[in-house]
Amino acid sequence: MVARPTTDYAFLADAVAARGAAGFVHVGDRADADLRYLTRFDGPDRGYAFVFAADTAVLCAPALFTAQAEREFPGDVVYGPTDLDATTPGQQAAEVLAALSAFGTVLAPSHLPHDAARYLERAGYDLASTTAVVDARARKTDAELDCLRAVQRAAEDGMARAETVLASAEVVGDELYWRDDPLTTGRLRRAVDATLTAAGVEAAGNSVVAAGPACADLHFRGDVPARPGETVLLDLSPRGPHGYHADLTRTFVVESEGGWERRASVAVEHAQDAAFETIEVDVAARSVHEETAAEIAAFGFQTGYDAETGFYHGTGHGVGLSLHEPPGLTAATDLEAGHVVTVEPGVYDPDVGGVRLEDLVVVTEDGFENLTEYPRSIVPREREQVGELDW
Amino acid sequence: MVARPTTDYAFLADAVAARGAAGFVHVGDRADADLRYLTRFDGPDRGYAFVFAADTAVLCAPALFTAQAEREFPGDVVYGPTDLDATTPGQQAAEVLAALSAFGTVLAPSHLPHDAARYLERAGYDLASTTAVVDARARKTDAELDCLRAVQRAAEDGMARAETVLASAEVVGDELYWRDDPLTTGRLRRAVDATLTAAGVEAAGNSVVAAGPACADLHFRGDVPARPGETVLLDLSPRGPHGYHADLTRTFVVESEGGWERRASVAVEHAQDAAFETIEVDVAARSVHEETAAEIAAFGFQTGYDAETGFYHGTGHGVGLSLHEPPGLTAATDLEAGHVVTVEPGVYDPDVGGVRLEDLVVVTEDGFENLTEYPRSIVPREREQVGELDW
Repeated sequence: MVARPTTDYAFLADAVAARGAAGFVHVGDRADADLRYLTRFDGPDRGYAFVFAADTAVLCAPALFTAQAEREFPGDVVYGPTDLDATTPGQQAAEVLAALSAFGTVLAPSHLPHDAARYLERAGYDLASTTAVVDARARKTDAELDCLRAVQRAAEDGMARAETVLASAEVVGDELYWRDDPLTTGRLRRAVDATLTAAGVEAAGNSVVAAGPACADLHFRGDVPARPGETVLLDLSPRGPHGYHADLTRTFVVESEGGWERRASVAVEHAQDAAFETIEVDVAARSVHEETAAEIAAFGFQTGYDAETGFYHGTGHGVGLSLHEPPGLTAATDLEAGHVVTVEPGVYDPDVGGVRLEDLVVVTEDGFENLTEYPRSIVPREREQVGELDW
Repeated sequence: MVARPTTDYAFLADAVAARGAAGFVHVGDRADADLRYLTRFDGPDRGYAFVFAADTAVLCAPALFTAQAEREFPGDVVYGPTDLDATTPGQQAAEVLAALSAFGTVLAPSHLPHDAARYLERAGYDLASTTAVVDARARKTDAELDCLRAVQRAAEDGMARAETVLASAEVVGDELYWRDDPLTTGRLRRAVDATLTAAGVEAAGNSVVAAGPACADLHFRGDVPARPGETVLLDLSPRGPHGYHADLTRTFVVESEGGWERRASVAVEHAQDAAFETIEVDVAARSVHEETAAEIAAFGFQTGYDAETGFYHGTGHGVGLSLHEPPGLTAATDLEAGHVVTVEPGVYDPDVGGVRLEDLVVVTEDGFENLTEYPRSIVPREREQVGELDW
């Protein structure tokens, strides 16, 4: 059983004190990762408000959701719709601030909805933007790491399904057949997504399954044939029940004859190892990308965002309640213990294919821990699946 | 093959002209349904901007997504990151407005992120909020209806899977067994979600599967045993590849002995029929709820948001790119052709269980069309699944 993580609001008290502010406010819906972190409440697709002031964390629950909010919110007070005079989240936030005797400046994330900002300003508050929430989110707690590990296990189950399908596919001319029909990226994606779902996680519309030249398209979602001798790239980023994402990429070739994909694969493995050797506390995040890119360049591939072949994206990004969050591995900031990042070098040629390897790692006091256990072979083998997780 | 719907920007030209504004702006990420409607672009989880001015629809594509944006955006111009001087979406919106010689007032949805609003105001623009996008979204085009029909078919496949599991479950004392283990709501949800996924849609974290007293919890996501003689309620709201949601609820009882769930079931069927008889163009949306509630009250159940048993929620809501969008069936607005709404009466008793039936219908010029084909029987039977859809 993977416990629902809680949130310690000390970082908000610190941020409010450091800015001489009276409190903190956020408004959003279930898709807002900052709000999910602040409330741990998996709410509806309409807006609701969170307020922190006078050392009190308050959630204004949307109609019909009060009981669920009370079960899930780790803060101090849940107000239901009938507990407040105000009806919109922005007005409710102002009402709660006043009830907590908080007046003056309030902090909020910069993407606070404009109507909520206007209500607060009309109620006499000065708004100041803060990155405190996204900063706090970047350093994962043990409970959050347990979530990330469990979702990464589920992603590995999806990958095992894909690899097994590829290993059992039949070569017929320049086509692959699976269960009597040509194997396409669409069919492979549906098989993988069904496995992810059975493991208790959401594919979340994130499963990239590409084959051949389409592997050079970093976010490919189309349906093309998977062919022998061509790369098949799977980038799986499902989301677990507590909102945390996995991120795992592997590339396979059925009946590889060596050549381009073999060179690319060796370069990418060495590049990932170069990244692993660089990751540690207090290292500049972007040095990880620089070392990775240098290794790929050493194998004779181009690098840089303007390159038309080779390695033309960043080496990695933070992962948590958002699939992409700080720290990015091209950022100037230093790595800290608790940072969870992808390490995902790739080499592409839009005329041929693409090879990418991606693991998810957590920076620790004495280096890093790889949250990924999946092997890195380009030759597909039949793999066992763990199946249903106890969420 | 279900075609990707397009967007006709005439409604924006009208809104801009009616308000004497210079243009329209929105900023958001992939979770923003207004932005999805405006761009048809299934972008990343970071912000990007849409601008409409001088009869020109512009998408500022986020880094690494220019090619995808060009494939998906039905508007006039896609700017990649290197085409613009500005780097944040709010600044890019201001730069594009100026390039289109649009100065003065610009319209925006009220939930525009506050930082984007500030950038625009600093660049000299007056912001005025508009509901034009959510209003336009409420009237579905034929292409959007095709998406909704297809997703509803997939939801029906998920329901068929659940009903088949229940019909094949074995009664052992006061427990149900399926595949040698006790059947729980968690196991049933995973089986349903895997079926939805195989049909090419996302369960989207929306599948409510409840049993017994938990059926009275409208958004139950827990894991409890499914028992003979008790209600098992499934509310499935998957999302299709083009972003549109289904919404389908059925309630089953294995080995019903009549009693409460039989009375509740008859009341709910009659209430849904009463709603169907009320739905037509130019009828006040809330009259649908009033007729539905009156029918449930006629069967001796309580109604009203404060009721602790009986029918304590609204009869329905609009469905589209958001699972919940206008028109709600308790709203004062009139129904229009093209409105797609759920019709979902329910009767609950937190000590016993709950029965809800939910269909998805579209208001037409001569009444309504039910987008739902699933039967309404409380006794589970084995049902065939259609399987993989051609998305």
